[in-house]
Amino acid sequence: MELGKRLLNGDKRAAARLITMIENDDPEAVAILSAYFSYTGRARVIGITGPPGAGKSTLVDKLAKQLRKQNAKVGVLAVDPTSPFSGGSILGDRIRMSDLNLDPGVFIRSMGTRGHLGGLSKSTLGAVKILDIMGMDYILIETVGVGQSEVDIVKAADSVLMVMVPGLGDDIQALKAGIMEIGDVFVVNKSDRDGADRTKTEIEMMLDFDHGEWRPPVSQAVAVNNTGIEELTENLDRHWNYMESSSKLIEKRIHNSELEIIDLTQTAILKEMMGNDDNRNRIRELAQKVASRERDPYSISQTVLKEMIVGAEGGMEV
Amino acid sequence: MELGKRLLNGDKRAAARLITMIENDDPEAVAILSAYFSYTGRARVIGITGPPGAGKSTLVDKLAKQLRKQNAKVGVLAVDPTSPFSGGSILGDRIRMSDLNLDPGVFIRSMGTRGHLGGLSKSTLGAVKILDIMGMDYILIETVGVGQSEVDIVKAADSVLMVMVPGLGDDIQALKAGIMEIGDVFVVNKSDRDGADRTKTEIEMMLDFDHGEWRPPVSQAVAVNNTGIEELTENLDRHWNYMESSSKLIEKRIHNSELEIIDLTQTAILKEMMGNDDNRNRIRELAQKVASRERDPYSISQTVLKEMIVGAEGGMEV
Repeated sequence: MELGKRLLNGDKRAAARLITMIENDDPEAVAILSAYFSYTGRARVIGITGPPGAGKSTLVDKLAKQLRKQNAKVGVLAVDPTSPFSGGSILGDRIRMSDLNLDPGVFIRSMGTRGHLGGLSKSTLGAVKILDIMGMDYILIETVGVGQSEVDIVKAADSVLMVMVPGLGDDIQALKAGIMEIGDVFVVNKSDRDGADRTKTEIEMMLDFDHGEWRPPVSQAVAVNNTGIEELTENLDRHWNYMESSSKLIEKRIHNSELEIIDLTQTAILKEMMGNDDNRNRIRELAQKVASRERDPYSISQTVLKEMIVGAEGGMEV
Repeated sequence: MELGKRLLNGDKRAAARLITMIENDDPEAVAILSAYFSYTGRARVIGITGPPGAGKSTLVDKLAKQLRKQNAKVGVLAVDPTSPFSGGSILGDRIRMSDLNLDPGVFIRSMGTRGHLGGLSKSTLGAVKILDIMGMDYILIETVGVGQSEVDIVKAADSVLMVMVPGLGDDIQALKAGIMEIGDVFVVNKSDRDGADRTKTEIEMMLDFDHGEWRPPVSQAVAVNNTGIEELTENLDRHWNYMESSSKLIEKRIHNSELEIIDLTQTAILKEMMGNDDNRNRIRELAQKVASRERDPYSISQTVLKEMIVGAEGGMEV
């Protein structure tokens, strides 16, 4: 049977293979996702982020198990934007050790796509579609770290869960400035540690001071002991119900589609620019002139734009 | 006197104003940087990154003071890719409190440029040029967090200093996978904490296992007590001498120029795409079709490419 049909029937091997194909920017995978795109949009997509050391993996593991108790099918994508590895990454090894993987209602995949030409969002969003088509009720996207790429990734979700941890010190201030606006639900994990109440209070105060129509709930958890997971799923449900019962869900999905269209277009342009030897050599030649201060990069980028994108023959080939 | 000349004379106010202009994508600032570009390339640019909670700000503060003892002029850029704020950001407030700012041989600026259309690299690299033109001997670029954008920023440096901290737990594995390849010099800060020796040993083992011609040194520090800062500057000197005495420095600068040219070209394309109302409205209209599953984003990106970049009249205007 062909790959797309097998995927629609929930075949995990087909899903794994398609994700690898989409990571490798295989045109056949893109064609399959195009053809089966109308089957997407059914899953609830939850993005999970937070600083390193917050225990996100353990939390995701427990969250997935809690959702399984409700008989939901759960897909997990662990995305590490700084890792050049895929599939066989350290994250992947950790995940494969999880007993979750023995559960037929769970599909876990780790992705590390650094080095792919502008392919991070394309791969991740492609994988989300694959899990959606195969019939997952929930898709949990876990990222390592808090940076622009992680923010971009979790923003593609319907709900963003921000995992905090006691003891971040001064850095919590800087983190907060960046994350407050993207978190829909907050949890302070490792709450058996000193300072957990203070961290929760600090987050509550920041949210009291600045929030929109939706005031994100903040709970505590000790994921390793499975404490606080039920309250967390209830908070996630509350956010989902709020989104679904208003125009917020469709608004968010339209906005996310805009970002994806722009990203796909940029990726296509970059591929065109850097996908042929002549262009690559020409850019290196121009870069040498910049490094030797013969020419400045600003005027050079105009040259590149004219030569490679607009082109002498009236535009690049599409 | 005109802004560019004042900058070349080391005028801090001119520098501050130009950085704001470049953040706002002011064409006049770009023109000034083009005109004075030949004065760049003199400063040693050091990128500093590491996980939140590693105490990077304090370390940068002490490092700058140590370099001042050697009579070097020091510029500091604190970049927070997740923060929409600039100048008046929380990071900025923290920095302005530093007594370093009273030192005439120091220029400190914080930048948070999220929300600017693809402008993160453009702003940061522009600010580096501004500090270089004004005559700084060292430019320290500090980033918050470890993600793809932070990696992109510090990669623009001549040397990358990776600040680690004891007690990251399992996440150190995931971090390591992403950072080992970009760090030129490592320091374990907060080394008075439990597990500091273990963290250092783990890093040493990773580096023993996998390094190029240059084997990054690893030292310990307690920045808050000013301990280990001298050893750290010696390690940074060793890396600089290695780079300068080989073809590595020019190679790295050519590579960085390639990345900058590509980034500037992409930014220009994005600006062209999203800089006019017609295009923005059209993308929103197409995004609605994606969100309602009428059309898929892959074929839409081809439509956008044809309509907006290649264009009916033979290409976009440059």
